[in-house]
Amino acid sequence: MESHVKTHQKEHHHEDTPPDPVALSKYSKRVELKTLLEGGASLVGKRVVVGGWVKSSRAVKKDSLSPPPPPEVFVPPPSSGGSQASPTPSVSCTEIINSKMNIFRKLFDVLSGGGKTYHIFDKHDLAGGHKATSPPEYIIHSQISDGSSVSTLQVIVDSVLSNVPATQLMALGTCIVAEGVLRQPLAASSKHVIELEAVKLLHVGTVDPDKYPLSKKQLPLHTLRDLSHFRPRTTMVGSVTRVHSALTLASHTFFQHNGFQYVQVPVITTAGVGEMFRVTTLLGETDDKDEKKHVDEKDGFSVDTVKAAVKEKTRLIDHLKRSDSNREAVVAVAAHDLKKTSDLEMRQKPKAAAATLIKPEKIDFSKDFFGCETYLTVSGRFHLESYASALGKVYTFGPRFTADKIDDTRHLAETWNVETEIAFSELDDAMECADEFFKFLCKYLLENRHEDVKFISKRVDKTITTRLEATASNSILRFSYTEAISLLQKATTRTFETKPDWGIALTEEHLSYLTDEIYKGCVIIHSYPKEVKPFYTRLNDDKQTVAAFDLVVPKVGVVITGSQNEERFEIMDARISEYGLETKEKYEWYLDLRRHGTVKNSGISLRMEHMLLFATGLPDIKDTVPFPRSWGKANN
Amino acid sequence: MESHVKTHQKEHHHEDTPPDPVALSKYSKRVELKTLLEGGASLVGKRVVVGGWVKSSRAVKKDSLSPPPPPEVFVPPPSSGGSQASPTPSVSCTEIINSKMNIFRKLFDVLSGGGKTYHIFDKHDLAGGHKATSPPEYIIHSQISDGSSVSTLQVIVDSVLSNVPATQLMALGTCIVAEGVLRQPLAASSKHVIELEAVKLLHVGTVDPDKYPLSKKQLPLHTLRDLSHFRPRTTMVGSVTRVHSALTLASHTFFQHNGFQYVQVPVITTAGVGEMFRVTTLLGETDDKDEKKHVDEKDGFSVDTVKAAVKEKTRLIDHLKRSDSNREAVVAVAAHDLKKTSDLEMRQKPKAAAATLIKPEKIDFSKDFFGCETYLTVSGRFHLESYASALGKVYTFGPRFTADKIDDTRHLAETWNVETEIAFSELDDAMECADEFFKFLCKYLLENRHEDVKFISKRVDKTITTRLEATASNSILRFSYTEAISLLQKATTRTFETKPDWGIALTEEHLSYLTDEIYKGCVIIHSYPKEVKPFYTRLNDDKQTVAAFDLVVPKVGVVITGSQNEERFEIMDARISEYGLETKEKYEWYLDLRRHGTVKNSGISLRMEHMLLFATGLPDIKDTVPFPRSWGKANN
Repeated sequence: MESHVKTHQKEHHHEDTPPDPVALSKYSKRVELKTLLEGGASLVGKRVVVGGWVKSSRAVKKDSLSPPPPPEVFVPPPSSGGSQASPTPSVSCTEIINSKMNIFRKLFDVLSGGGKTYHIFDKHDLAGGHKATSPPEYIIHSQISDGSSVSTLQVIVDSVLSNVPATQLMALGTCIVAEGVLRQPLAASSKHVIELEAVKLLHVGTVDPDKYPLSKKQLPLHTLRDLSHFRPRTTMVGSVTRVHSALTLASHTFFQHNGFQYVQVPVITTAGVGEMFRVTTLLGETDDKDEKKHVDEKDGFSVDTVKAAVKEKTRLIDHLKRSDSNREAVVAVAAHDLKKTSDLEMRQKPKAAAATLIKPEKIDFSKDFFGCETYLTVSGRFHLESYASALGKVYTFGPRFTADKIDDTRHLAETWNVETEIAFSELDDAMECADEFFKFLCKYLLENRHEDVKFISKRVDKTITTRLEATASNSILRFSYTEAISLLQKATTRTFETKPDWGIALTEEHLSYLTDEIYKGCVIIHSYPKEVKPFYTRLNDDKQTVAAFDLVVPKVGVVITGSQNEERFEIMDARISEYGLETKEKYEWYLDLRRHGTVKNSGISLRMEHMLLFATGLPDIKDTVPFPRSWGKANN
Repeated sequence: MESHVKTHQKEHHHEDTPPDPVALSKYSKRVELKTLLEGGASLVGKRVVVGGWVKSSRAVKKDSLSPPPPPEVFVPPPSSGGSQASPTPSVSCTEIINSKMNIFRKLFDVLSGGGKTYHIFDKHDLAGGHKATSPPEYIIHSQISDGSSVSTLQVIVDSVLSNVPATQLMALGTCIVAEGVLRQPLAASSKHVIELEAVKLLHVGTVDPDKYPLSKKQLPLHTLRDLSHFRPRTTMVGSVTRVHSALTLASHTFFQHNGFQYVQVPVITTAGVGEMFRVTTLLGETDDKDEKKHVDEKDGFSVDTVKAAVKEKTRLIDHLKRSDSNREAVVAVAAHDLKKTSDLEMRQKPKAAAATLIKPEKIDFSKDFFGCETYLTVSGRFHLESYASALGKVYTFGPRFTADKIDDTRHLAETWNVETEIAFSELDDAMECADEFFKFLCKYLLENRHEDVKFISKRVDKTITTRLEATASNSILRFSYTEAISLLQKATTRTFETKPDWGIALTEEHLSYLTDEIYKGCVIIHSYPKEVKPFYTRLNDDKQTVAAFDLVVPKVGVVITGSQNEERFEIMDARISEYGLETKEKYEWYLDLRRHGTVKNSGISLRMEHMLLFATGLPDIKDTVPFPRSWGKANN
């Protein structure tokens, strides 16, 4: 094989300069495409191993009458003037399938149920073995991607190197590991600065074309959603994932570099307010799964039926929700309203409700795994605060859950939040923190994910880059709720469904008017009426408003919520007491923080999925995360 | 007030050099103690605001016969030769309480139910107002901590500055925000290089001594565990938290700098194997909580009774579990054994079991929130692999859950794992990744958390630093399971409860013998019999062993597990099929990754809590995380 390589290097005039090794991808014996594409022309002549999945292919038929080329000598495609002008015209994958399938079938098991792995195939064996009956030979040009970059690398494979049919090798989604030599593209029209001429195929993981759901045609995002495990193979979802990844590191970096300590807050919690998921082991495993009976069948209704049935409820809740897109606020404001709505619904559908819910009165939770009722957490800020009251500045980043029966483009049942608590701080400090954190994230993306942002921008929303740049470099305007209401009342170009009277929760239309129309950018709205914010927000001296704020961005709504928390025992005690004794009992430990060594403190909460909506311009939150969980839907 | 400051500066001979501002803590208008302690003597004379919680205090009584000092002039403590030799002897907090409580009670509401917040207190007001009836005056020396450092800062407060009694100000846990001037300690014997002489008290958050559970005496860790929200205020838990925080950033940094993309895998999953928590909204909210009935009371048993009753089961499971401390392995190996044990237990306690479990046969999960059965995830590696099959190298860091009814020093129901999947890689690559990642974490702690490691070392385990250093600088020995068995069989100094025959799962005693006695360090054991590892591990050519490994550390056991995963469709298909049709159906998407574009791949999984056990030497895993969830226990 060595002589083979040398022959190639000679062709590229690199004989006298033994190539430096190209940096391997850590923990895998191949070079990342990113390394090659960034290295560009300087890497010509180097011999490397690459791996990736085929994004597109074309084949050039080799002259079937000429003798097979000796394995040592590379035969360039007949024309170097671009494939369009080639005297041996390119043929599409489909053409080859139609014309040659019968031959292929005789030789290879291409129709097996699953994809196959073909191991290293030595050209020498082929020459000695099957040569007499081998199928027509092609030079295959495949664009492969390994996810390290938006761009692809063109790999040129002589079909004689492969022990799978050319159609299989060329098919979208096929995994190829190839050893080869980097060269400048022979076609002058090529948009690539470098391509790989394969010398050896080390691995081919085929696809089963009848079952593989992705296609060369760009599938709509909502179709891809049902293909959760394949969709990262699309350039779009790959880019969104890399943006997500960057935002994750940026979040940790920002807070740790500013002196915050990460604190791992629990996912399973004991206090439940609002619509929460229960965590239990009381619903044991079935003894015999096959005998499973749906005893409530006659009273039953499917998720779809429920969806329709509670449309009215959804509308009501949604209205409240979007009012400030603040989960915690809703808990505070709408607890009673929700209860009423829920009761109403129960009365309207008594049979259905009875069949669905197992009354907790009938359950002894002291026998559950933890010996008490447990839920999936809605927010980590309470737990975090106990650590802030010792370590000063703390943050966390973890999953939060809400069981609201809402299925729209802004709600997920499982989301990830970055949350902070800062001791010795007040509302201004929290707003400053939100402002700088948000801008840091935008700047980080521009600096570290430029290629992905550019790609997403092209596909989804051309204004993304400008928006990120403008946000990163300008200070975010801050004004009070009262000023916001005043602005809304002065609106002449717009009438609102909800009249902007002081005291209302701001709705989506209000926020959109302020950010999309008036300010054309991100704003911070602070000092809300106490009724629309959670009980733990600090009461201002006017006794009417609280020290809470929202960072609102165009098109998306609220991305960061924040507040100075009530540090005065008596006031917090009174506010918690409104929720009844049982709730108060569960928050005694939180009250304890005010009983003993209380400190002025504030914190913020960023919803990563909403940040992703802002950073990508994607219209649906279900496309921001790999495996979205929403009402009635949990793929894989 | 300005003249007051100047007077002080004069005393310290800094009049001519206007102090540079000391860097404020971000997002809080105070300077972190860390900044001051690291700045040391160079900061003498600077005026700063600090905040923190009192760790200890002593008071020096001022001569009651001398006239009160004018507010502008600072009166140093009578003796500068250290408090022991002071002519006005130090008095303990208790002494003051006993002798002066009646006077204090008259003046201040110290016995209120909750702690109080006292706002800025102007010395001038005091002089004009309550002076005639004021209590004896003290110079209070308090060590305060703000969590930014292991060390404390001494703050000197003249009791005349305070509007709360000296006893309240001095009490452990009191929060103080003080403005003052930095000076060199007057006592030559002081271990501090710097201390703060308070000029103003900006905030005091008192404690209610009757209810505050922490004490100056070092409480045992298991006692602190029930004080989850207060225990970060102890130096020990503070240090462990800072170590945890560093490991979190280090993990993200390591993988991102090595070209991995972070992928957010779901916490709520649809496939369940083994003992898992269910996530449901079917157990609805009670209509009237006060009327809650425990209908199964007569058949019931408390968590404690259950704990005793299943001791036998625990022993059995534990035996299996510890065998290789590999959760996934247990799923594979012990699925049938567990079932049998469980059945046995059911037969032994039919009434109890019937009363506790709600038979899933009676539940129509199509009516649950997601329209199907959902669980809390055990591992993110499956989901991660689908992203590795597109993006190449991916990692995640999130919560994992197991509902094993085991309550010991090594099990938590909720843990956090760092998991990776690497496409185009094999077992060696994964072992290399585990090796480098583990060593990186050790090195990172030594470099970034030296003070905390030193403190924990002093308190818990003197060998920690040496162990971390040795691990960080040496390569980790790798040998096969077969070699391990051979070594164990040759053991002469030790007899094992489980005979080390080839094929057994290695137990805690085996691993401990290899790491604590033979190698006195970390080892990687690879190529396990296929029966003791999960179904997805790649079958080796010998058809007996699989490409899986464990990184085992002294005293703790397995910290990292890893494997090359089976990329061959037929073999994976056969292995999944063993679990029955229902399971197979749920893993069809995972099989899809082998059907279409399969690639050799491997991954690792680090358990953060076990890493913390190794890094801190703590004996119980419940002390490694803020709010541990374990069988029968979920505080706050």
